[in-house]
Amino acid sequence: MLVVFSKDVSQEEIAGVERRIAECGGDVRLVQADDRVVMVVSGGDTGAMEFVSKLPYVERRVLMEKPYKLVSKALHGKVRTVEVAGHEIGGRFFHVCAGPCSVETREQLLYTAERVSESGATFLRGGAYKPRSSPYSFQGLGKEGLDLLAEARRITGLGIITEVLSEEDVDQVAAVADVLQIGARNALNYALLRRAAGTGKAILLKRGMCSRVEEWLLAAEYIAIQGNERIILCERGIRTFETGTRSTLDLSAVALAKRETHLPVFVDPSHAAGRTDLIGDLSRAALAVGADGLLVEVHRYPERALSDSGQQLSPEMFDDLMSSLEPFTQAAGRILERRSSSDLAGGGHSGWSG
Amino acid sequence: MLVVFSKDVSQEEIAGVERRIAECGGDVRLVQADDRVVMVVSGGDTGAMEFVSKLPYVERRVLMEKPYKLVSKALHGKVRTVEVAGHEIGGRFFHVCAGPCSVETREQLLYTAERVSESGATFLRGGAYKPRSSPYSFQGLGKEGLDLLAEARRITGLGIITEVLSEEDVDQVAAVADVLQIGARNALNYALLRRAAGTGKAILLKRGMCSRVEEWLLAAEYIAIQGNERIILCERGIRTFETGTRSTLDLSAVALAKRETHLPVFVDPSHAAGRTDLIGDLSRAALAVGADGLLVEVHRYPERALSDSGQQLSPEMFDDLMSSLEPFTQAAGRILERRSSSDLAGGGHSGWSG
Amino acid sequence: MLVVFSKDVSQEEIAGVERRIAECGGDVRLVQADDRVVMVVSGGDTGAMEFVSKLPYVERRVLMEKPYKLVSKALHGKVRTVEVAGHEIGGRFFHVCAGPCSVETREQLLYTAERVSESGATFLRGGAYKPRSSPYSFQGLGKEGLDLLAEARRITGLGIITEVLSEEDVDQVAAVADVLQIGARNALNYALLRRAAGTGKAILLKRGMCSRVEEWLLAAEYIAIQGNERIILCERGIRTFETGTRSTLDLSAVALAKRETHLPVFVDPSHAAGRTDLIGDLSRAALAVGADGLLVEVHRYPERALSDSGQQLSPEMFDDLMSSLEPFTQAAGRILERRSSSDLAGGGHSGWSG
Amino acid sequence: MLVVFSKDVSQEEIAGVERRIAECGGDVRLVQADDRVVMVVSGGDTGAMEFVSKLPYVERRVLMEKPYKLVSKALHGKVRTVEVAGHEIGGRFFHVCAGPCSVETREQLLYTAERVSESGATFLRGGAYKPRSSPYSFQGLGKEGLDLLAEARRITGLGIITEVLSEEDVDQVAAVADVLQIGARNALNYALLRRAAGTGKAILLKRGMCSRVEEWLLAAEYIAIQGNERIILCERGIRTFETGTRSTLDLSAVALAKRETHLPVFVDPSHAAGRTDLIGDLSRAALAVGADGLLVEVHRYPERALSDSGQQLSPEMFDDLMSSLEPFTQAAGRILERRSSSDLAGGGHSGWSG
Repeated sequence: MLVVFSKDVSQEEIAGVERRIAECGGDVRLVQADDRVVMVVSGGDTGAMEFVSKLPYVERRVLMEKPYKLVSKALHGKVRTVEVAGHEIGGRFFHVCAGPCSVETREQLLYTAERVSESGATFLRGGAYKPRSSPYSFQGLGKEGLDLLAEARRITGLGIITEVLSEEDVDQVAAVADVLQIGARNALNYALLRRAAGTGKAILLKRGMCSRVEEWLLAAEYIAIQGNERIILCERGIRTFETGTRSTLDLSAVALAKRETHLPVFVDPSHAAGRTDLIGDLSRAALAVGADGLLVEVHRYPERALSDSGQQLSPEMFDDLMSSLEPFTQAAGRILERRSSSDLAGGGHSGWSG
Repeated sequence: MLVVFSKDVSQEEIAGVERRIAECGGDVRLVQADDRVVMVVSGGDTGAMEFVSKLPYVERRVLMEKPYKLVSKALHGKVRTVEVAGHEIGGRFFHVCAGPCSVETREQLLYTAERVSESGATFLRGGAYKPRSSPYSFQGLGKEGLDLLAEARRITGLGIITEVLSEEDVDQVAAVADVLQIGARNALNYALLRRAAGTGKAILLKRGMCSRVEEWLLAAEYIAIQGNERIILCERGIRTFETGTRSTLDLSAVALAKRETHLPVFVDPSHAAGRTDLIGDLSRAALAVGADGLLVEVHRYPERALSDSGQQLSPEMFDDLMSSLEPFTQAAGRILERRSSSDLAGGGHSGWSG
Repeated sequence: MLVVFSKDVSQEEIAGVERRIAECGGDVRLVQADDRVVMVVSGGDTGAMEFVSKLPYVERRVLMEKPYKLVSKALHGKVRTVEVAGHEIGGRFFHVCAGPCSVETREQLLYTAERVSESGATFLRGGAYKPRSSPYSFQGLGKEGLDLLAEARRITGLGIITEVLSEEDVDQVAAVADVLQIGARNALNYALLRRAAGTGKAILLKRGMCSRVEEWLLAAEYIAIQGNERIILCERGIRTFETGTRSTLDLSAVALAKRETHLPVFVDPSHAAGRTDLIGDLSRAALAVGADGLLVEVHRYPERALSDSGQQLSPEMFDDLMSSLEPFTQAAGRILERRSSSDLAGGGHSGWSG
Repeated sequence: MLVVFSKDVSQEEIAGVERRIAECGGDVRLVQADDRVVMVVSGGDTGAMEFVSKLPYVERRVLMEKPYKLVSKALHGKVRTVEVAGHEIGGRFFHVCAGPCSVETREQLLYTAERVSESGATFLRGGAYKPRSSPYSFQGLGKEGLDLLAEARRITGLGIITEVLSEEDVDQVAAVADVLQIGARNALNYALLRRAAGTGKAILLKRGMCSRVEEWLLAAEYIAIQGNERIILCERGIRTFETGTRSTLDLSAVALAKRETHLPVFVDPSHAAGRTDLIGDLSRAALAVGADGLLVEVHRYPERALSDSGQQLSPEMFDDLMSSLEPFTQAAGRILERRSSSDLAGGGHSGWSG
């Protein structure tokens, strides 16, 4: 049960409800949702519910069967948008976030950033800390990569999405990123989720490679329960027996998550397919199924990439992809959000040439 | 290797090539593809290839790494359409096939057929023979169901897609069906594939619940090698760990199959989702990913259905779905094929009222 | 509900019960189980149950929540054995069935048969009809392969297990086989299951590559409902994301099936692992988990095999495997059944030398 | 390539090799393995290999195709044991670790610890920090739970295995635990693996729910590369489509890991099955397949457990399980290690009564 208090409820009144519910065996957590205090009640007998239903300073009660509560669409009764870097994510807007798998060099990053920006991307994605299956693989530039991302933002005006892998790095990454990405390998790393949530930054939460939709939404609940509702879900393919693609993109999960939560849902077709030739088709399908945005890997020279070279688009291919999305955004009644020229520090072309 | 002979090749010349390739250790099968004889060569040393490359009555050779050959896009160098019941399937056309999971009664079938026809479906789907996990579940009306499907075609002009489960029933089902459906459970039942192929009817081949794309295309090759190229592939969801949906619809597989073969590919969102609330989203995504058609379950009274009651749309929901597809077909540059009024025996409304 | 009638029940009394249950909305099937008539009731209200509970000629009623009934352990209240070719399968006995993936030549089959017989196998396995992913792969010797299997039985006294792929071939295969094998691809091919059941031969039913245990047992129910209880289940690995082995052997499913049914359960470690180095470990684990037998691929010259060459043991490796099983059969309180010398037509060594 | 230096190699000689390999494009890491320095070389051309092959202070080179190197069986050429809490894990010894899913109360923990110790367990398992899908579920007693585990060790002499969930908690947990457990959700949380490895404590590394064996071994490599070779692998079931069990226990993965690495491999049948009735069968199968130990959940009152109540054995059931393992350990040529009475602080029964 969710108990939404009216705006003018007092601390004493809330404390009284808390005591009473505890007496009925219920467990209580308080969360600030917009301008209201919401009490999330787990367990407890019917006495608690009856008691609450009669209080004048309770605006409404929401009974919920599903185990997730704060990310449930029932909490606000509608989808919500997340504001990041001057953009609204979700709702009518469709965002494309693009960039290299890994930040490799200044030249590579800035060139790619400019190109994806010109093609209409609103966010730059790129990993400074890379989770790699092998400890012998390139692990990312770390702090140096973060600095390059910050520079790319200054020059292009793009928002920055980058992954954080360790609790220890959270503050450092949060100092640069507009959106903290939690990758598939850490999708159920609740300690990291809590630390990232605590920064107040928007969190892009990828679905784990074998997470059920319910588990994914519960992982988001771990973030929301810290008081941070700025969550963007991201489907990136699940593990199945199919070997023709790297993972199996589960667009039903996107449709399901959109029905169950008020959160925006993105799709990462690059990691799902693991091959460039399917990315256009999957991106259009993601848009049609109701996703709110894409995470697409783009590299100046895909074949030279230090990680995931087989799945990164060239800037030209990315530009074609963006053009091909236009008619589908219209069919879907969505607005393909683009970085406006006024986002640029100096306006117009940035003058940087890689 | 495929050896495409020129039109005027003689029987003797073909036989000569056959002998020579056999001497080189190759295995040969002859297939008629359009107006050309094609020799499918498996195995054999390079001597065979060199020999063939110099013959004047060989139009072209196609070397292929993939194990499927006749269904490969390389055979014709482009996608092809399948003609069925006066319709062209594939290419620019997008078809929606709709109808109940099972044929249950005359009233149920004819009412549903009329309604889906009015909404724009071109084919009626419905099972007379039903594969059910339990022998105690309703197994379909059998022959009586086939008769009702034939009547529905007479009245509505819709083409008929219906499943065949047994080698013994193939001729009986083929006498009524425009398209013989091979279901997911029989996706690797090669004996049934061969028998069905032998009827010359168009075959809708569902992907098995755990078939890799390559195995699916090889199953299609079993049909093609019988001389029947009238194959429509159909993705219906695969088995994964996710429990929020009945199966996991694999739209990457659709994109992949479209790249690999010249065959049309349909999508069955009803079996994939197993719940009506996601069918609209998945149908639009299927269209956007490049599918050539849909198989959608529609029932007059879904909640009373004798099988799969949770996943069948009402006629009203189906009508809404069809309307919602229009803008996406345009975005995709496709034509949403509808049964034209001239298809009707008597023109206009059929006069039957259920 | 199962209604077990007493031995002396009359046809009229049974017919009366049938009518009464039909009036209560129940569906009835009669099956002969041992020397009793058993009525399998699906559906129906509580009136039917009460009525039945008072009849003097009803020995007992078994209420069952699970959808399978005739294969359920509840039917007989204990595990049962299946008698085949003079052997008892199940119960205390542990059987090892061995032989080549495909029957290839007389020499290959007879040599292998003798060797596995000498090592202690009781059944010879070998495919005359082979289901292959590609139509261009070796499809088996067909009728000629069956003749060789029959000869191998005459010479070695081994029972014969061989796969049937087509309804049309059932009688031909049943004329030779002691056990008809239904392979993983046809695990849900109910038409083939019915035809095979009708021969009265013992059926080895492999689990489908993505069949849940419940579906596997329901497939067995399709056989049992034809009046054929001589069913041996066989786990052969399921499809998962793991690529280190060909399939993932699911020994929990074996333990589960043993708990749920009265049927013997075999394990095929060869197809599961797809590599010889794990077959010993998996065989011993299968024994320890409670399996009643093994299906192991053995070939005179594994590296020259026409199918599955990577997973077939040499006769020497098989002999080592048999020796290694001995202490585990004792630990498990099982008897490792071996072909006794008296099984041999001429006694002792057969005199055939390949 | 691994370069194993002789004992008397000098720092300068090592540095020289390092420089030379870097010139050839290779990447070098130094690791202390036993009393030798081992240089792990990734990449590099053949010049590096030739150069190394001629050096007098290089004992041997090991070429390796597999991406894991330090955990590879090739490193030591044989399996190795891990010493923990006076026990040798791996090799001839088979260990059973038992205890409640969560540490709940002093009484629950101490009672259970005594009982499993009396039955022959050598380690007590129990979670003080619990990773739960829902943030509303019991998250463990935390520090208080660690104190209880320490007390249980003092009283019973059992070694302690307990999970660590957060980088921040590593030191605190390491102060109590003999073995730090990394759970399935954190199986690819490399930051946590590195921190845990740094404590020098033995690490029990569970396989991720969708980790391939290769990824699991590479995760172990992340630990080994920190200089900590005291790693115990633990298979706990993978995510598949099967719903009859909580996960699908993959004993092939155990056999495979035993072949590929020198590390001991444990099996956790409790999480795999998620139901008590299969745990005995799966435990015996784990032993037979070559596992070096078990992790079994035991609770004084399973039905009252605060987590995973359906899969915990009662102490009586656990005692039966231990007895049933005896004959199989003998068949496998293993020694079922038991806590000797001299392990007890005061000798004999501890005197504590819960």
